[in-house]
Amino acid sequence: MDIKSSVQQIARDAQLSARKLSRITETEKNKALLRMAEELEVNSGFLLKENAKDVVKAKKSGISSAMLDRLTLKPSTIDQMAKGLREVAALPDPVGKVTSMWRRPNGLLVGKMRIPLGVIGIIYESRPNVTVDASALCLKSGNAVILRGGSESLQSNLAIAFILQKVLRETSLPEKAIQVIPMTDREAVSEMLHLEEYIDLIIPRGGEELIRAVVAQSRIPVIKHYKGVCHIFVDASADMEMAVNICLNAKAQRPGVCNALETLLVHQDIAGQFLPLAANKLKKAGVVIRGCAKTKTILKKIEKAQEDDWYAEYLDLILAVKIVKNMEEAIAHIEKYGSLHTESIITGDYTNAQRFLNEVNSSTVLVNASTRFSDGFELGLGAEIGISTTKLHAFGPMGLEELTTTKFIIYGNGQMRT
Amino acid sequence: MDIKSSVQQIARDAQLSARKLSRITETEKNKALLRMAEELEVNSGFLLKENAKDVVKAKKSGISSAMLDRLTLKPSTIDQMAKGLREVAALPDPVGKVTSMWRRPNGLLVGKMRIPLGVIGIIYESRPNVTVDASALCLKSGNAVILRGGSESLQSNLAIAFILQKVLRETSLPEKAIQVIPMTDREAVSEMLHLEEYIDLIIPRGGEELIRAVVAQSRIPVIKHYKGVCHIFVDASADMEMAVNICLNAKAQRPGVCNALETLLVHQDIAGQFLPLAANKLKKAGVVIRGCAKTKTILKKIEKAQEDDWYAEYLDLILAVKIVKNMEEAIAHIEKYGSLHTESIITGDYTNAQRFLNEVNSSTVLVNASTRFSDGFELGLGAEIGISTTKLHAFGPMGLEELTTTKFIIYGNGQMRT
Repeated sequence: MDIKSSVQQIARDAQLSARKLSRITETEKNKALLRMAEELEVNSGFLLKENAKDVVKAKKSGISSAMLDRLTLKPSTIDQMAKGLREVAALPDPVGKVTSMWRRPNGLLVGKMRIPLGVIGIIYESRPNVTVDASALCLKSGNAVILRGGSESLQSNLAIAFILQKVLRETSLPEKAIQVIPMTDREAVSEMLHLEEYIDLIIPRGGEELIRAVVAQSRIPVIKHYKGVCHIFVDASADMEMAVNICLNAKAQRPGVCNALETLLVHQDIAGQFLPLAANKLKKAGVVIRGCAKTKTILKKIEKAQEDDWYAEYLDLILAVKIVKNMEEAIAHIEKYGSLHTESIITGDYTNAQRFLNEVNSSTVLVNASTRFSDGFELGLGAEIGISTTKLHAFGPMGLEELTTTKFIIYGNGQMRT
Repeated sequence: MDIKSSVQQIARDAQLSARKLSRITETEKNKALLRMAEELEVNSGFLLKENAKDVVKAKKSGISSAMLDRLTLKPSTIDQMAKGLREVAALPDPVGKVTSMWRRPNGLLVGKMRIPLGVIGIIYESRPNVTVDASALCLKSGNAVILRGGSESLQSNLAIAFILQKVLRETSLPEKAIQVIPMTDREAVSEMLHLEEYIDLIIPRGGEELIRAVVAQSRIPVIKHYKGVCHIFVDASADMEMAVNICLNAKAQRPGVCNALETLLVHQDIAGQFLPLAANKLKKAGVVIRGCAKTKTILKKIEKAQEDDWYAEYLDLILAVKIVKNMEEAIAHIEKYGSLHTESIITGDYTNAQRFLNEVNSSTVLVNASTRFSDGFELGLGAEIGISTTKLHAFGPMGLEELTTTKFIIYGNGQMRT
């Protein structure tokens, strides 16, 4: 059997499993999720052993220490995975929810009911924990999942899938609802991205390059997020202390993530007071500032920001700072350089707060709060499968609901069209 | 200027216009829509003259009479267009609607607000009325639109766009919110489908071949609908008269449309009584039946259905009929041969009605009603830009709401992430 037909077989099996899974009750799905948590714990020895094979190989190939860190399983990571499964079991099942219902003049009762998307393909880096998280969220939302992790994590992923599939079998759920693609060839991914007959959605998780390659090839809808160039606009009427604290939190609390602050926009009327205070605190946290010409007249010792800096997702302790004349200029800057991810305004002015919320059409727009809240858990979605910066289907942090669609259900009593 | 850069310019202009348009109030948009209706009426002479150029050319090139019919504008078609614009003006604007809002334990108030998608590209056949309809729906939902109609209708589309843009200018709305691509080259479409930076959604409207070509090339999300192979399942407990009437309505009231009945599934316990009655009425309406082997033992004179017939979207007075043992077989048939469009069950049995609604995951599922109701107007959406049979973003008939997405809006008072 060649790669192409193997992947096709996986996709066909996934579709059949998805159809069965769409009819499984929440109780049965939860039972399986809780069993999976137990089984991961019970089999942690086996998982660690299989993972060690990946780690040895990866070390030899000389991958970065950050990558190695994400690849390596520890007993605590396995506990985390089990905990994640139990948390997903505790979330409400979106499937079958009737989101609205209305009666037509001819008596037809028309409603919209949530149903699973079907088959979801996840393409990700060598992070075995994603194998468990993604499987849990897909299973709970009634979707079959096809997992294609980085090749360095293959043994780990196969071991995890072996355990999860065993539970599916033992709880009479469709075993092929969770599948790992066992071929590490690129051809397997290409084939997967063309199987629009069987796969309903592709979610790539990883760097911009990986995501662009997926989008270029895929005939299946892709939910993606290239990067997060998040802005805070400190308005003239901002509470100074609040503004400093929020900027510090947004930039430095965890600089390597997509909802961290990258560019700070400051109203010219407050810049002279605000920037020295902010710079002082940021400097203590190790943040390096790159400022516009006007910023440099206030904060003398900083580097000069170049055009590239306004587009940059540093994911590091670097912050671009620009002084703007007014809100129009702030919004225009965000529109030009932003990535539609997350933007926040710090203001004491009612009109400006409302205007910012209305006019900035990024996926998450905040008033007087840190950009770091742009996260499925923090917003109360209960889980997060990813953050979308494309507007189709889902925009912003995606939870279980975003892994479903709606169908129209119609109760009639003999109506015909005239 | 070459084709590529011309299309890029159009797309860039569309994006800038979309940003402005997203902030325009409903009142202003309605004013423009009503003015457009007036201007189309006032300028009907000009429109008819420009359309005549297209018609003369098309006749020479020998297009089919059906295509010629759709291309040709008449005073009554222009009245229809104006009426459509007034109807869209009367619909509620989805933009700015906060669909839900909740408070987090830390005091953050989190909501989801509807916003326009941005720029929508519509690729369609030579039907000038679509130029007006699509423009109206996009404008009302705050989206800029790029229109690429069939080359036979170019003069007509340019004339329509000329009038609509004039109104945009005169009502201080962004003129480039409605643009027609003036190049008929295929290269223009290819270029358009690659401009994911500027265009948010592609909606192809036309035959399956056109749609498949668009999907194969596009890097932009596509909302599509390949075909409608709609089923009715007449259950053992069906009211006989209701079942006959609904089947007749679904098949023969307008056979050339995507929500018309194509395959009839009949429970074996009722087939002997039901099929002769139904066949009699269907025959009178000119419908030709192609049946399975069992059907042929009841309706002797019919043709035998081949495997291909179960996949067929006849769009004609032909009906495939199959006798099934039970509901399981009916649902399995729909899953195997269906197109996820529209399916209906005719039944008097409560459990079977609920089960069919729950288990069949097509975009529209009905009980005791004609498949012909799968339509944006009939379901009460107020309008229809198309019917999606892919599950991402929108599934089933799409109205104004489906031309929007939601962003998260968050009201804080100094919250930071811990």
